[in-house]
Amino acid sequence: MSNNIPVVQNILSANDQIAQQNRQQFETAGLLALNLMASPGGGKTSVILKTVQALKDEFQIGVMDGDVVAIDLEELDKMGIPVSLINTGGNCHLDANMVHGALPTIPLNDLDLLIIENVGNLICPSAWDLGVHLNVVIASVPEGDDKPYKYPAMFKGADVLLLNKMDLQEYMGFKVDYFRHGVEVLNPGVEFFPVSCRTGDGFDAWLSWLRQKISERDRAG
Amino acid sequence: MSNNIPVVQNILSANDQIAQQNRQQFETAGLLALNLMASPGGGKTSVILKTVQALKDEFQIGVMDGDVVAIDLEELDKMGIPVSLINTGGNCHLDANMVHGALPTIPLNDLDLLIIENVGNLICPSAWDLGVHLNVVIASVPEGDDKPYKYPAMFKGADVLLLNKMDLQEYMGFKVDYFRHGVEVLNPGVEFFPVSCRTGDGFDAWLSWLRQKISERDRAG
Repeated sequence: MSNNIPVVQNILSANDQIAQQNRQQFETAGLLALNLMASPGGGKTSVILKTVQALKDEFQIGVMDGDVVAIDLEELDKMGIPVSLINTGGNCHLDANMVHGALPTIPLNDLDLLIIENVGNLICPSAWDLGVHLNVVIASVPEGDDKPYKYPAMFKGADVLLLNKMDLQEYMGFKVDYFRHGVEVLNPGVEFFPVSCRTGDGFDAWLSWLRQKISERDRAG
Repeated sequence: MSNNIPVVQNILSANDQIAQQNRQQFETAGLLALNLMASPGGGKTSVILKTVQALKDEFQIGVMDGDVVAIDLEELDKMGIPVSLINTGGNCHLDANMVHGALPTIPLNDLDLLIIENVGNLICPSAWDLGVHLNVVIASVPEGDDKPYKYPAMFKGADVLLLNKMDLQEYMGFKVDYFRHGVEVLNPGVEFFPVSCRTGDGFDAWLSWLRQKISERDRAG
């Protein structure tokens, strides 16, 4: 077993090294980079579409999508947003090098915000630094209020947490307090926005916060 | 790269070899073994609870749960069902060896049915043979009707597919035909049961089918 340990360490540091290069390119471009993570069907695409729709006249936005198919990108393309598909070939997460390889396909220097949609998976993506500024985790009400207790690494690593499909809260008997308690134990004080992509509820708070973060980055860049 | 390929092959065949040992133990015990896979919150635990509740007076049932915490097992334990927790330590899937290590904790020879609850993940578990008879995939309506198109490996490998949370179909605008078309392209003729753990709708068909499978196995054992 000890023969293998150095190999594993090399793999990890290769990812971190390339993540560092990504981070530097994002800094140079003066943009804010987000890594969006969620379960399959948690609402990554819907959150991106609603966020882009709301902010596209204020900011220049680009989107990268880690997926096996491109059906998520068509609507963004119609809005005139630069988009790039990272074909993961069925891989269970994005890594820094996949993102790095896709950077030349996006006009980074023109952007204020880059949104990277990770693979739909509440486990593996949490272990891979992509070099972004903020890890955004989207949980959704139909998944149940016990998810922070069962997928701790993902919730621990979040910089901001959206709880989507709040329109189903009452029907599903989802206990927001129980959910938040699980999150707070792992990640005290994490930014938290309950939203509904269907009704639009809660989006104003998320968008205000995001506007602020983009502006801070823009002033720093 | 070519230096690494033999290593990868060894890893895969080690899993398959142990899967074969598991299969043999299940055959000897004359039980039917299921591998239940789904997204986080898709309904693995609810399907198990409802299935066990309905069949526990007819058959001897055991449950293994691949998880980081044991909260899923308490209700089964209350029903007097032999249960075993496979602590995956945050791993993203079960493999054959994890299951093999847990076999001595379950009275296999007394059982007609062993249900193994995999880690909540619609990608990684599909690549690992556990040695079971049937791979059961649970999709759920709130995840969206595009999931077979976006997570093809999981749907391709299913022996039977449950579509859970059907009570939300109308509200979510979930198109069952579109979903089924995606499944049929990947996996023609796969057994398909639309169900709702909340209302109980569709469970009779699933339970009849499962009863039949258990009886066939029992006669073979």
